[in-house]
Amino acid sequence: MEKMWSGRFSEASSELLEKFNASINFDKELYLEDINGSKAHVKMLAKQKIITEDECLKITNALNQILQEIIDGKFIFDIKDEDIHMSIEKKLSQIVGSDIGGKLHTARSRNDQVALDFRLYFLKSTKNIAHELLNLITTLKDISSNNLQTIMPGYTHLQHAQPVSLAFHLMAYSFMFMRDFQRLESSFKRNNLSPLGSCALAGTPHNTDRDFVAQELGFEGITPNAMDGVSDRDFALELLFNISVIFTHTSRLCEEIIMWSTSEFGFIKISDKFSTGSSIMPQKKNPDVAELIRGKTGRVYGNLIALLTTMKALPLAYNKDMQEDKEGVFDSVNTALSSLVILNQMLKESSFNKENMKKASMTGHLTATDLADFLVREKNIPFRQAHFITGKIVAKAEELSKDISELSSDDIKNINENIDDEALKVLDLISSMQARKSKGGTSTQSVKEQIDILENWIKNINF
Amino acid sequence: MEKMWSGRFSEASSELLEKFNASINFDKELYLEDINGSKAHVKMLAKQKIITEDECLKITNALNQILQEIIDGKFIFDIKDEDIHMSIEKKLSQIVGSDIGGKLHTARSRNDQVALDFRLYFLKSTKNIAHELLNLITTLKDISSNNLQTIMPGYTHLQHAQPVSLAFHLMAYSFMFMRDFQRLESSFKRNNLSPLGSCALAGTPHNTDRDFVAQELGFEGITPNAMDGVSDRDFALELLFNISVIFTHTSRLCEEIIMWSTSEFGFIKISDKFSTGSSIMPQKKNPDVAELIRGKTGRVYGNLIALLTTMKALPLAYNKDMQEDKEGVFDSVNTALSSLVILNQMLKESSFNKENMKKASMTGHLTATDLADFLVREKNIPFRQAHFITGKIVAKAEELSKDISELSSDDIKNINENIDDEALKVLDLISSMQARKSKGGTSTQSVKEQIDILENWIKNINF
Amino acid sequence: MEKMWSGRFSEASSELLEKFNASINFDKELYLEDINGSKAHVKMLAKQKIITEDECLKITNALNQILQEIIDGKFIFDIKDEDIHMSIEKKLSQIVGSDIGGKLHTARSRNDQVALDFRLYFLKSTKNIAHELLNLITTLKDISSNNLQTIMPGYTHLQHAQPVSLAFHLMAYSFMFMRDFQRLESSFKRNNLSPLGSCALAGTPHNTDRDFVAQELGFEGITPNAMDGVSDRDFALELLFNISVIFTHTSRLCEEIIMWSTSEFGFIKISDKFSTGSSIMPQKKNPDVAELIRGKTGRVYGNLIALLTTMKALPLAYNKDMQEDKEGVFDSVNTALSSLVILNQMLKESSFNKENMKKASMTGHLTATDLADFLVREKNIPFRQAHFITGKIVAKAEELSKDISELSSDDIKNINENIDDEALKVLDLISSMQARKSKGGTSTQSVKEQIDILENWIKNINF
Amino acid sequence: MEKMWSGRFSEASSELLEKFNASINFDKELYLEDINGSKAHVKMLAKQKIITEDECLKITNALNQILQEIIDGKFIFDIKDEDIHMSIEKKLSQIVGSDIGGKLHTARSRNDQVALDFRLYFLKSTKNIAHELLNLITTLKDISSNNLQTIMPGYTHLQHAQPVSLAFHLMAYSFMFMRDFQRLESSFKRNNLSPLGSCALAGTPHNTDRDFVAQELGFEGITPNAMDGVSDRDFALELLFNISVIFTHTSRLCEEIIMWSTSEFGFIKISDKFSTGSSIMPQKKNPDVAELIRGKTGRVYGNLIALLTTMKALPLAYNKDMQEDKEGVFDSVNTALSSLVILNQMLKESSFNKENMKKASMTGHLTATDLADFLVREKNIPFRQAHFITGKIVAKAEELSKDISELSSDDIKNINENIDDEALKVLDLISSMQARKSKGGTSTQSVKEQIDILENWIKNINF
Repeated sequence: MEKMWSGRFSEASSELLEKFNASINFDKELYLEDINGSKAHVKMLAKQKIITEDECLKITNALNQILQEIIDGKFIFDIKDEDIHMSIEKKLSQIVGSDIGGKLHTARSRNDQVALDFRLYFLKSTKNIAHELLNLITTLKDISSNNLQTIMPGYTHLQHAQPVSLAFHLMAYSFMFMRDFQRLESSFKRNNLSPLGSCALAGTPHNTDRDFVAQELGFEGITPNAMDGVSDRDFALELLFNISVIFTHTSRLCEEIIMWSTSEFGFIKISDKFSTGSSIMPQKKNPDVAELIRGKTGRVYGNLIALLTTMKALPLAYNKDMQEDKEGVFDSVNTALSSLVILNQMLKESSFNKENMKKASMTGHLTATDLADFLVREKNIPFRQAHFITGKIVAKAEELSKDISELSSDDIKNINENIDDEALKVLDLISSMQARKSKGGTSTQSVKEQIDILENWIKNINF
Repeated sequence: MEKMWSGRFSEASSELLEKFNASINFDKELYLEDINGSKAHVKMLAKQKIITEDECLKITNALNQILQEIIDGKFIFDIKDEDIHMSIEKKLSQIVGSDIGGKLHTARSRNDQVALDFRLYFLKSTKNIAHELLNLITTLKDISSNNLQTIMPGYTHLQHAQPVSLAFHLMAYSFMFMRDFQRLESSFKRNNLSPLGSCALAGTPHNTDRDFVAQELGFEGITPNAMDGVSDRDFALELLFNISVIFTHTSRLCEEIIMWSTSEFGFIKISDKFSTGSSIMPQKKNPDVAELIRGKTGRVYGNLIALLTTMKALPLAYNKDMQEDKEGVFDSVNTALSSLVILNQMLKESSFNKENMKKASMTGHLTATDLADFLVREKNIPFRQAHFITGKIVAKAEELSKDISELSSDDIKNINENIDDEALKVLDLISSMQARKSKGGTSTQSVKEQIDILENWIKNINF
Repeated sequence: MEKMWSGRFSEASSELLEKFNASINFDKELYLEDINGSKAHVKMLAKQKIITEDECLKITNALNQILQEIIDGKFIFDIKDEDIHMSIEKKLSQIVGSDIGGKLHTARSRNDQVALDFRLYFLKSTKNIAHELLNLITTLKDISSNNLQTIMPGYTHLQHAQPVSLAFHLMAYSFMFMRDFQRLESSFKRNNLSPLGSCALAGTPHNTDRDFVAQELGFEGITPNAMDGVSDRDFALELLFNISVIFTHTSRLCEEIIMWSTSEFGFIKISDKFSTGSSIMPQKKNPDVAELIRGKTGRVYGNLIALLTTMKALPLAYNKDMQEDKEGVFDSVNTALSSLVILNQMLKESSFNKENMKKASMTGHLTATDLADFLVREKNIPFRQAHFITGKIVAKAEELSKDISELSSDDIKNINENIDDEALKVLDLISSMQARKSKGGTSTQSVKEQIDILENWIKNINF
Repeated sequence: MEKMWSGRFSEASSELLEKFNASINFDKELYLEDINGSKAHVKMLAKQKIITEDECLKITNALNQILQEIIDGKFIFDIKDEDIHMSIEKKLSQIVGSDIGGKLHTARSRNDQVALDFRLYFLKSTKNIAHELLNLITTLKDISSNNLQTIMPGYTHLQHAQPVSLAFHLMAYSFMFMRDFQRLESSFKRNNLSPLGSCALAGTPHNTDRDFVAQELGFEGITPNAMDGVSDRDFALELLFNISVIFTHTSRLCEEIIMWSTSEFGFIKISDKFSTGSSIMPQKKNPDVAELIRGKTGRVYGNLIALLTTMKALPLAYNKDMQEDKEGVFDSVNTALSSLVILNQMLKESSFNKENMKKASMTGHLTATDLADFLVREKNIPFRQAHFITGKIVAKAEELSKDISELSSDDIKNINENIDDEALKVLDLISSMQARKSKGGTSTQSVKEQIDILENWIKNINF
């Protein structure tokens, strides 16, 4: 059989292998963590008299110089250096000489170094995503505050069920994202431990001070067992999972935004910046951003299952399989950050068509159950009879081509002595919504309480 | 084309449909939660004067009677009742009459009822799994305490790297399972909120007391938004994830147990109860249990991805898709509980072949790096030269068909003036292991500290 | 910490273990395959003179008796028998004595026996699912034939794009399910090979005739390598994947059915049998079945990832992990069969609201692009100018609160000399749809060709 | 809370959005497919007189020029152009003017254009991977041919079971990869259809010739329904699945290679090029490549579940979610190609330690069952008694610290009259292996037949 490609894989196998083994193309994202980690490490080595203060100073200065070169885009990442750690170390030795440069790696191994860098990245990213969640929560809360009485149909099975307020509906999402925030916070705190000093797998005979390094880098403490310290990737799994749940939530919100954008629903108008249109079909507005975010749910789920699979059944301690741990995490983190920022912007610049929402609420006799409930509660009518009377009211409305919420005093005359103006009131959409005053309900009062709960939580965030 | 089956699907489609829609075959597992939830609910209804004390009493007694019938195996679960909730409610109405029985469902809907039952199940299961983890951790700790000086090769890339103690190796797993416990604990506390009173999706006009119900059932509080309350399944996702990470860890441990059981390694002997053997191949012992636990990693990962997929892009609030939330959770919970119990038993009844472990440690000149380190540290020899000298020692050992840890004073004579009896000491396996005194290291002292950390954590568990 | 459960796991660990190891609770589903396989095997043993004809007869009769007992529900499956194979073999020995009964297992091992049974199940299930797909395809084709001119909006991004026929839309699904069928067919043919005779892992010294057994059981041939024969589960993965893609397709169809069922769309009315309603909200009809099928996508994806995970990195040949291969396959097969049968029934008993579909098509000036195309093609007007003129027509329609497809001769007077009655024609919805005569297009003629292609394919199915 | 990052997401949201929407960073990989597709399309437009021959020529020349610029690395991909299609089209208009350039898009839409490009990529990649599989199969076959009598332990449960040849063991993998090849071939043939001409979703009023374009591009035919044509991604799912199964197989092989590389097994020596070593631990050789390939199983499983998730429940026809279809496929394809090339090279340059394999085979009395079988078959001894006698032989061997395969005539004297020199022969490892002459067995003759089967299949490949 004949090859179809132009020879990408005909290159010298040694080059192929070099690329296959190298991680520098992606782990260079860790340059800041790597340099900070090294600086804290040499500071400790000097404090413990394992190297001299002068050596420490020279190494630190050189690392600062390298950092600046990377930031300035002048640093050359060479695939021959295999990974970011080797790349920086080689450069360091060029600057300070290999005798001094070589001492950086005393009482350290690439295994605990990479564990450190990746954990620092994890902590930073966890916090950054939480930050963007908070922005999104705030936006949802603000829109809610302005829509406490905006009526819309509440759906179950995508069928009209009961009238609710837009505020109530959006607050449901606020609380989802609050939980997402809390999961990130809890994950941050549980994993805020430095693995440095675990060395290859078993610790070191050098008289190191792991707690000092941890403090320097802002950790709460150190990992208790070296073998676990180099082979643990739970924190990465937690981040991938936490992002997956965020996308479960954003995919639900985006599904609704996409549906609300249809000409059939017509509940929302997305700003032009977040949609593509057509010059000759003026109403056409593709909700591209919402679709993309919904679609990206796939990749973040995929990244989670990828790392779970890679970690399955690996013997202790470090195995090269674990080099596969980073790309998926980087991808999920970047996907989460950009999606949250854009979703937030899109919501801010969208407008809701209250007229259409209200009109939709008047389809389906949404308040029929309110009437039945009212007859049971206030008129002491047995449930079955209450249903029967309500059925008659619905029939009357259908006959008049009205929704029951639109019936007038005249319309309901002579149907049943219990159907009076008081009863009429519960048929009203606003009344129905406002009646649900139970904690967590859709009444304005209940939703205000929910906003209070949320604001109180925000005020007390300590993360 | 011809059908190959005997007609299972030729049954009346109405029956097929009945089965397809029904969840009673699996959600009957929730009977206890359902009855407890209903009892707390009627107690609240009576307190709030929504029903009378007498009605409350009758319903409660009937529910107790039903509970006893279920426990006694006398209750008939009928597929026509669709789910456990209907099943119990129907029976209730048979006992107390439908006028009173019907009142149980006042200010409640199947949506928040199922959310409550499932959450109670989640809390119970989370705690039960944590309990079994603790048993396993204790076993690992106990074995570790008895093997502080049992030497074995420490592996990276499954290659011999440095000598470690079995205690140190097993403590790595203790700390993995400690994190698993902590994740469960954190998940329990974050989700310890009652959704009851959310009703269909928007709360209720009845004057309910959700906090009272929550307290009755042992919750810390109530869910803040009704729409979120009925559509939230984050807690189930968390449990599925937490179990997945547990199996990442157990699969690693079982992989090692399986490998250690080979005739090539020969490190462990599993009790006959947990393996299958052969009468004429006396050494053959299949580590079935370890293999099964490793294999079950697939199903728990699968259950996680299943619920993530089901929840993707579902509009609010309740959708029938969510009926698919339970089976996977039940399966993962049962798999986790039985696997942890059995893994624990298996470890307790296994014995380690210290002789073989030690012999293996003497393959590969594991202490060569110790010598090089020693020459640098104590004799002030530059690193490169230290390596050169070490290389000569290794060559000498190879020549004598010994491991360097076996070299005698005589063997090393005349190689280099720095290679003296002091140097010989660092070549010793035990010395090498004991030298790694850094926090988290493999020395006996370090591992004892690790056991202290773990015991201290256990003592302070408040869950 | 305190246990929360009532002691399910406090049972004697030996019982726990028995349950943990046993597969009989699920693999009893393979009883027919197991008995058929055994009958073919003894027939071969007799032909090869490895056992006598008399022994063969006695074993065969006993197996037939066991089969009847199972069908009659009289056979007792005991967890102590571990699996279906042991269970039947034990019973066999009770009937014919263990001297003769024991000979059934000559030149066979449990490893190739289970591989055989599972493969026979795979073949049967593959065919059964294909059969149900064909029923569904036929239904879709029939509805299409009756709706060649039923106008509806064609969507991209869930926005109205171009008018299409319902027939055209549903034929898209027909071709998806056709590919699903073809995948099953191809998988069946690729894997139609008997593994029996592979024995434990390396074949047998007995003079067996594997081809004879294969022929007896209807296979096309035998697996070429014994070690691969007992460790291959590709066929199971293929089935799990093929079912996953089927659910990708059914989930898309069900998503549309659910959306079409909303009061906002109102395109479809599902029969009461396949939905749940409400006595007092007459329009409310929950599309439960469509939701459930969409939701079940999760479990079939989960089952796929579960087996992929379990099979990852297993050394050859058989490992106990592989006992985990069946439950997920059984679950996906049963889910697929029941879902396809019910989806088919539901479609047959649904009715489409053509009025609403047409009304929706008249929202969004769907034919604006037709006009622009027409001006370019027929009037030789440069594209940009054509767009400008079309824009004016849309503006006019908006002014008149009409869709452009509703404009009359009078309406368009004086807009542009090229906008004449001929131009008016292309604005018409039906004209627009019928104009798309390209192969695969939405015109009646094109869709009829598509139906022909499908019918021709059906006629030539040889599977 | 404070932000932890340096402002990557503080950029103008419009830029963020541009990047978020754009696919050019990854879909530029499709440049060749895009240009070839466009060339075939304009050729058809000219043939159908939709454009002039002169226009066709100008566009074709310009496209050739663009292709050369891309190959030469001179073409600038600008994120503002959003995707590869726009990028090339813009450049085309710069070369030939927008009047002519704009005509390229006649009777085509981005929806069918991207469907075409992606399908061409799929076909090419499917073939390329099949090609690499064939190389790997050939290598395995060659090693097998040279190791027909190389004895090693055959494992079940990772325990020694029966003696097999290395050839037999490796041929198991040959047949796995053969099935992988066949799956790719079948997928190629099933999906070898051109979607071009489906246009946006409903075909075109232009008088196009879809079959002509299909032929020009080497397709077997055209997709039958336009809506399906633009929304079908089954082919991509098939490729992701086929690659996943390949990695199930490579992960099994790599797991064995890693284990065989341990000092405990010592069966294989990997070339230095494919492993990393240590200067002072001469025996240490990390099997990095095998570990990486095993680890990459995660990412290809992840990519599969990602696309399955993305496609779940998408309404017809095109949705922006589907832009997420490519990156995972590109990643899996590149991962598969590089892994297969390197695995093949690594196997070619590895050497097997036959001495160690044989020594391992002599652990565990692997031929004990052979003796029992022999006594039953040749000496007509009842099974139970045969077992008893075999047990005595094993006991004797243990007493002599020998494997039963090492027993001499003297050793077995006086144990039982049936244990004679003939019986001794079956205890021999080679005899045992050679006795398994059944089709698919491990005897030299059987393995030679397997090699014949494979070679015959290779000879008849028509793909």
